[in-house]
Amino acid sequence: MGGLARFSVAVGEDLLRRFDRLIRESGYANRSEALRDLIRDRLVAEQWAAGEEVVATITLVYDHHVRDLAERLTEAQHQRTDRIISSLHVHLNHDNCLEVIVTRGSAHDVKELAGLLIGSRGVKHGGLVMTTTGEEL
Amino acid sequence: MGGLARFSVAVGEDLLRRFDRLIRESGYANRSEALRDLIRDRLVAEQWAAGEEVVATITLVYDHHVRDLAERLTEAQHQRTDRIISSLHVHLNHDNCLEVIVTRGSAHDVKELAGLLIGSRGVKHGGLVMTTTGEEL
Amino acid sequence: MGGLARFSVAVGEDLLRRFDRLIRESGYANRSEALRDLIRDRLVAEQWAAGEEVVATITLVYDHHVRDLAERLTEAQHQRTDRIISSLHVHLNHDNCLEVIVTRGSAHDVKELAGLLIGSRGVKHGGLVMTTTGEEL
Amino acid sequence: MGGLARFSVAVGEDLLRRFDRLIRESGYANRSEALRDLIRDRLVAEQWAAGEEVVATITLVYDHHVRDLAERLTEAQHQRTDRIISSLHVHLNHDNCLEVIVTRGSAHDVKELAGLLIGSRGVKHGGLVMTTTGEEL
Repeated sequence: MGGLARFSVAVGEDLLRRFDRLIRESGYANRSEALRDLIRDRLVAEQWAAGEEVVATITLVYDHHVRDLAERLTEAQHQRTDRIISSLHVHLNHDNCLEVIVTRGSAHDVKELAGLLIGSRGVKHGGLVMTTTGEEL
Repeated sequence: MGGLARFSVAVGEDLLRRFDRLIRESGYANRSEALRDLIRDRLVAEQWAAGEEVVATITLVYDHHVRDLAERLTEAQHQRTDRIISSLHVHLNHDNCLEVIVTRGSAHDVKELAGLLIGSRGVKHGGLVMTTTGEEL
Repeated sequence: MGGLARFSVAVGEDLLRRFDRLIRESGYANRSEALRDLIRDRLVAEQWAAGEEVVATITLVYDHHVRDLAERLTEAQHQRTDRIISSLHVHLNHDNCLEVIVTRGSAHDVKELAGLLIGSRGVKHGGLVMTTTGEEL
Repeated sequence: MGGLARFSVAVGEDLLRRFDRLIRESGYANRSEALRDLIRDRLVAEQWAAGEEVVATITLVYDHHVRDLAERLTEAQHQRTDRIISSLHVHLNHDNCLEVIVTRGSAHDVKELAGLLIGSRGVKHGGLVMTTTGEEL
């Protein structure tokens, strides 16, 4: 992680007053902690825009009665085992399953995989969390 | 605007190195300027979530040949003249107009008006920019 | 605009029941009208992803006391007069102005201009509505 | 699931031509399949807006060296065992873990839990996928 650096920031008084109120309401311990979170959010967005190596979770909800769907999803993942770290399967109800896939790779490859899985015939709904390896953050 | 307040922030060295690189690439003059922007973005989101008085622009693209549409849009705006500041009309091409409406009010009222206008029959597409009066920011 | 095409759609009964409820609540006149809106939203997103010619509105809130800001914003616009259709200026309060700029061009150019304007020193907040010329929609 | 309902839709010829092109490029088998996806996306958004029972995955990236963090995250989850279905833990690298939590409940409760976990001191980044139980969809 490396050590801590300390520097001084200049902010308008009105802006700071509102920010301090937000910090209290959000339960942050202090300004530094809140600012670190804002900085990290911005940097993670940059990692994705710049096509760096990223981490993502892909969430799928699907009806397991749809013919071949489970096989197709598994097959799509096995063709990219180098990019898929792990997955979790949940039986939501009689018809529907939820699967979360943790994946890692270039922003471009991860988005492509997410599009492929979420767009599979029989997948009712899906979503992507674009996050980070956490290194240097 | 009030004066400037100055305070000290502690950030991990790795995180700060990445942030400094982002600052250079984004053309910010210095860390304070970049942090003020991050803080403002967060506060504007809070103003909307908290239902405070906000400002918004509502953009509509519509086919002016659709019967009664222009009248219906004008009528909807006139019933809320206290909330509508101004509007701009552009003739995009033979069939289509774009209208931007600048509005002000509680976050709830503004979102309701945006939904009503964007959802009007004949409006092909629309969008909302949720912004701020700028006061205390 | 061209004529109307009519085709048949198959949807699960449960899904259709929920969709019909949504249609009633949203004030759509019928299923076709609701589906046309869903289709258009998707196509506008595609136009932006594919880099086609698009239309956008850029909203800026800024403190007009910031030195040179108004000049810098005007200058940035004048260098791209071929892409800027019109703009609207509103005096929000003693310190703050809102400006909406209607622009047209390739998705890439329009996003670049929006980034430049919203990121200008002194601009407190901004937003972009990515919309369409309306043609073929 | 229930049976299939069939109904007729009227769409402008230009709009339909563009939609058909999108269908081909996205790999949908036919118009019905594409429209069902658009309808489901819209209905899931409604379920969240209306505060219905929903399903979500919460993704967290954190440094496991931060004191007490793992315990705090576990504790927060155990106080809501009725809402948490399952979770998956991945060791990303020397310092950082990723955790995905599958949760179920009212839209309000799920968002509150996500805010609490993602905002915990030591969590570097997080995200929420708002999805559905899949029933009636």
